[in-house]
Amino acid sequence: MTMSAPQVADRVDSPSLTEAIVQFVVDTPSEALPESARHMARLSLLDWIAVAVAGSDEPVSKIVRNMAMDDGGTPAATIFGEQARLPARAAAMVNGTASHALDYDDTNFVYLGHPSVAVIPAALAVAEKTGATVSDFIEAALIGMEVTSRIGAWLGQLHYEAGFHQTATSGTFGSTMAVARLLGLDRERAQHALGLATTRASGLKSQFGTMGKPFHAGMAAANAVEAATLASAGFVSNPQGLTCSQGFADTHGGQSTGHADVLQGLGTTYKLESVLHKFHACCHGTHAPIEALAKARASRDLDATDIDDVKITVHPRWLGVCNIPSPATGLEAKFSFRLTAAMALTGADTGALTTFDDASCTDTALLAVRDRVSVQTDTDLSDTAAQVHVRDRAGETIFAEHDLLTPMPRAERETRVRAKAAALLGNEVADSVWDAIGESAKPAGHWFTTLRH
Amino acid sequence: MTMSAPQVADRVDSPSLTEAIVQFVVDTPSEALPESARHMARLSLLDWIAVAVAGSDEPVSKIVRNMAMDDGGTPAATIFGEQARLPARAAAMVNGTASHALDYDDTNFVYLGHPSVAVIPAALAVAEKTGATVSDFIEAALIGMEVTSRIGAWLGQLHYEAGFHQTATSGTFGSTMAVARLLGLDRERAQHALGLATTRASGLKSQFGTMGKPFHAGMAAANAVEAATLASAGFVSNPQGLTCSQGFADTHGGQSTGHADVLQGLGTTYKLESVLHKFHACCHGTHAPIEALAKARASRDLDATDIDDVKITVHPRWLGVCNIPSPATGLEAKFSFRLTAAMALTGADTGALTTFDDASCTDTALLAVRDRVSVQTDTDLSDTAAQVHVRDRAGETIFAEHDLLTPMPRAERETRVRAKAAALLGNEVADSVWDAIGESAKPAGHWFTTLRH
Repeated sequence: MTMSAPQVADRVDSPSLTEAIVQFVVDTPSEALPESARHMARLSLLDWIAVAVAGSDEPVSKIVRNMAMDDGGTPAATIFGEQARLPARAAAMVNGTASHALDYDDTNFVYLGHPSVAVIPAALAVAEKTGATVSDFIEAALIGMEVTSRIGAWLGQLHYEAGFHQTATSGTFGSTMAVARLLGLDRERAQHALGLATTRASGLKSQFGTMGKPFHAGMAAANAVEAATLASAGFVSNPQGLTCSQGFADTHGGQSTGHADVLQGLGTTYKLESVLHKFHACCHGTHAPIEALAKARASRDLDATDIDDVKITVHPRWLGVCNIPSPATGLEAKFSFRLTAAMALTGADTGALTTFDDASCTDTALLAVRDRVSVQTDTDLSDTAAQVHVRDRAGETIFAEHDLLTPMPRAERETRVRAKAAALLGNEVADSVWDAIGESAKPAGHWFTTLRH
Repeated sequence: MTMSAPQVADRVDSPSLTEAIVQFVVDTPSEALPESARHMARLSLLDWIAVAVAGSDEPVSKIVRNMAMDDGGTPAATIFGEQARLPARAAAMVNGTASHALDYDDTNFVYLGHPSVAVIPAALAVAEKTGATVSDFIEAALIGMEVTSRIGAWLGQLHYEAGFHQTATSGTFGSTMAVARLLGLDRERAQHALGLATTRASGLKSQFGTMGKPFHAGMAAANAVEAATLASAGFVSNPQGLTCSQGFADTHGGQSTGHADVLQGLGTTYKLESVLHKFHACCHGTHAPIEALAKARASRDLDATDIDDVKITVHPRWLGVCNIPSPATGLEAKFSFRLTAAMALTGADTGALTTFDDASCTDTALLAVRDRVSVQTDTDLSDTAAQVHVRDRAGETIFAEHDLLTPMPRAERETRVRAKAAALLGNEVADSVWDAIGESAKPAGHWFTTLRH
């Protein structure tokens, strides 16, 4: 299935990262895109729709949506949260923001960013505007998320540590390429789009903890529609803006050389396949212990009333993040190792937002387990890993561990993403949306009708 | 006239640059704004309108305008180049781009940027949308250009040398403050607007020489409308995003301390008053010699046919920029010391775009003078200065010199800006627009009707 992919990985003396990326975007034939990557993109799409629907009532989503609706314009693309269609740029901004509002979307540790929330809203808005099929849209989104991950990995840890939010910056570049693919830009036009994106991209981590963070996803998506649309109309930029002297990498703490690594396997292997979906509607730090406890519970068909003592071991960096021992509110519950452990051991649906309500903090059955949980640390553990020891009343101890980076088999991932979508959308709607995503020849976005009845 | 200005300049222990700026923006009463600064703002507005009209047919202006018109939306603000009104964000982008398309707009060397092209389109679009008066709009624009210049001066040369285009970056901050003033935001909301602007602002000098440069002005103007509009609706940002750790200054090569200097005199003296308007439609490097030659010509009522020899002395940095000895096209003519000197000595209107046509390169009267001009360099000269020696056929030599940074008396500046507007718009329209700008109680933008008949 990879026979027709452009062999850019072989060009070790490649003169330009931009040229290699654009060649991949423009010239990769549909047949060369592996089914495993398409499947991952479809799962990320289902996940994205579910978190965007759930996030569309958040205050930041409403504020951005109201501005866009006040501006109005040619109805070209669907938005979440209102029965309205807006111009593609506006819809990309609204949907990007809504989908990152809960911070419940997917993550790629390859570049420390959230690929779907920038790329999917940009690609979907333009796909709806141009009448592209589901299949064409999925391909563009897949390619855009791949470019985001690869450029993000090249800009790297230094870029992130310098203060930039990769979801916004690399997200702009990858989503610009997704839109370029959908608009059918040639190599030259696609390079001008990318060059323009380098002078438009922005987003600072110093806005984390504010509405700025989810808005970054909307900015990236809107920037992408704008850059590719302008380039398609003849806009001339410096097409080497990513890598040139005082270009984006140079001015934003990234590396400006050494792109051979990040082009390795471009067109044949997909960094998209290392995307992680979030399966619990609480702080990422609690996810590894929840997974380990679920394994422990399943291994012995353990009943909550049989539990005598629970020890959770995590990397010490998490103690300052999510170790509220006796949370009092739903928000605090999301940052409590002990309470989320009790939820996991009693079989609560930690994928549902409603599980984390104020009442959960005073639920006697949960508190009975919570009060048997203690947290300890081990600097030898990765910060994506946890170990748990669960002792039952008979004195027997079950050990389990989990690392979020452990690859998940395709079937299991599908089951779990669909279960998350069901928790957020309801079983019936989640199933209908998943079926709609599979209807390749239909117009992209046709699943919105499913969401509306 | 300064009695009511907030005395932020006295707060040498000011805890926050942002707080001081926002206090100036929100709390400065109309009466505290000096007439000299208002006059400068009115001149910059006339200049801005003239260059925006002239620039609205440039390819970049059309490309951006077509995108905005394709998106459409609620008609709130007028655009140049088409009989159409668009949402304020869109109009700000279209008009910002058009006004910077010819690079013929004003400059403030205090921060190496072009203040009007970012601030005026943002303020004007929102003033039209909200029905603000000319007077309220001029105040907001004045305040926005002042903030742009001061934050720009604080970010400083290092920010510019790191690769950032101050017109785009500091321009976003000042225009956000102009819109905040027009929307009547309180201090808290205005700070959130500025915080949001810090994570939205972008613009790289590596796009100079492409359509990216004029588009930067449109980006800044649109960013400003967006940031202040979202903040007015309750958007929560990190309001210290300009100065905080990993905030804008920290991540963009700017200084993050030492803001006392830049607050000196805030509310009492206006850096806006050091704005330079461009009076010649050619490379900035040719402006000082043109001015000096005009003085030489006027001092003796010199006829072109009397000229025997002309020596121009400039800083050597200009030799690689605008010393095409025998230009062949209108564009090359703009980069020719010798031909522009001939234009100045024959009384051509170097303020008019049409003067720099292909025919000017073969005009026998011009060539007769051009061929008597030579260029020499002196490293002791400032790069904004020139000296000229003009020898007549009787053997007498006239010496004249000019430095662009020499302050220009108010009356002379008004005469010259109005002459430039007349060269670009025609005498009658230029006069009508200037009169319209003076009608303080009318709705902002009412001059567009004058431009349309």
